[in-house]
Amino acid sequence: MDKVELSAQDLTPARLIFIVGAEVNGKPNFMNVGGGGSISFNPPLIALPIQPHRYTLKGIMENRTLSVNIPLVNQVKEADYTGIISGTQTDKAKDCGFEIFYGKLKTAPMIKQCPLNMECSLLHVLSSNSHAIVIGRIDASYVSGEYVKERKLNIGDMNPLLWMPNKGDYMGVGNPVGKVRVIGKEIKVGGI
Amino acid sequence: MDKVELSAQDLTPARLIFIVGAEVNGKPNFMNVGGGGSISFNPPLIALPIQPHRYTLKGIMENRTLSVNIPLVNQVKEADYTGIISGTQTDKAKDCGFEIFYGKLKTAPMIKQCPLNMECSLLHVLSSNSHAIVIGRIDASYVSGEYVKERKLNIGDMNPLLWMPNKGDYMGVGNPVGKVRVIGKEIKVGGI
Repeated sequence: MDKVELSAQDLTPARLIFIVGAEVNGKPNFMNVGGGGSISFNPPLIALPIQPHRYTLKGIMENRTLSVNIPLVNQVKEADYTGIISGTQTDKAKDCGFEIFYGKLKTAPMIKQCPLNMECSLLHVLSSNSHAIVIGRIDASYVSGEYVKERKLNIGDMNPLLWMPNKGDYMGVGNPVGKVRVIGKEIKVGGI
Repeated sequence: MDKVELSAQDLTPARLIFIVGAEVNGKPNFMNVGGGGSISFNPPLIALPIQPHRYTLKGIMENRTLSVNIPLVNQVKEADYTGIISGTQTDKAKDCGFEIFYGKLKTAPMIKQCPLNMECSLLHVLSSNSHAIVIGRIDASYVSGEYVKERKLNIGDMNPLLWMPNKGDYMGVGNPVGKVRVIGKEIKVGGI
């Protein structure tokens, strides 16, 4: 199996879609982000690459708050829409029929129809040539009732939305292929 | 659809599995990372949360290099194995039958059997209570020949390995559900 060297590039083949929310000029705005992810468990931190010209970023910087909303495969149209038009041109929340709710931070609008929502304080912004890398500290987490059991998250058969950048497709999650920290035990330590 | 507030926590429901490589005490070592991701396009940067006690991290800090290898669903045993035993105890590359290759950096061991490989220079490390957040700059990218067409990446039906932390399952990628920057156009701007 020979290897071919390509130009230096990120080959990450599948990524979760986040819908990031912020209050911009007093109104909720949303954009999709198809990169970044969890970078710390304690405190819970999330890193999100956002292009510097984005309208949502303006609100994040002004209020130092943001929300992260997780869409499902049946929300693919809305998730894509938030990425193809700017909040300077239209009210994306209205166009998508999003019901908005707020938590502790008051300036981190969250989408009711998304089953998982996190409100975040802006902890830090790193800069690259192409992106503002927003690092948010998750201050509170919200879940739609159907995914809660005994006050704990129970995601059941939830099908979150992914994308494969090199295919240009949105995808769902497939079938389970093994248990974490279990299936690896089929390989023997020291080959024995 | 009522929302339930849970303790502040990362609810990210599906994450790509990375196998991170480093040279530790002169030998290649590997561990899985189920968080982080791409944080910049230019330069291509990747953020990876690694617990401070990990043996692989020692090598990353010493050489200031690392590799990121993308396993497929049929490598789930190997991917899991690299996360359940420490390189202080065994030669994980040998146990898993990994064939190793090196690129420009000489101290970023890559796994031939993984279809996508990136070698990275350590750019920065952020610290949280639970994790060292390793930020790598991708210096070169390698692809198994079967996924290259006219010297460009062509991932075809590649099925990378995901995990769902709240289920404890590894999963594959599911079916396409829409085209990026196309399907959102079914929603009308301004509702018109």
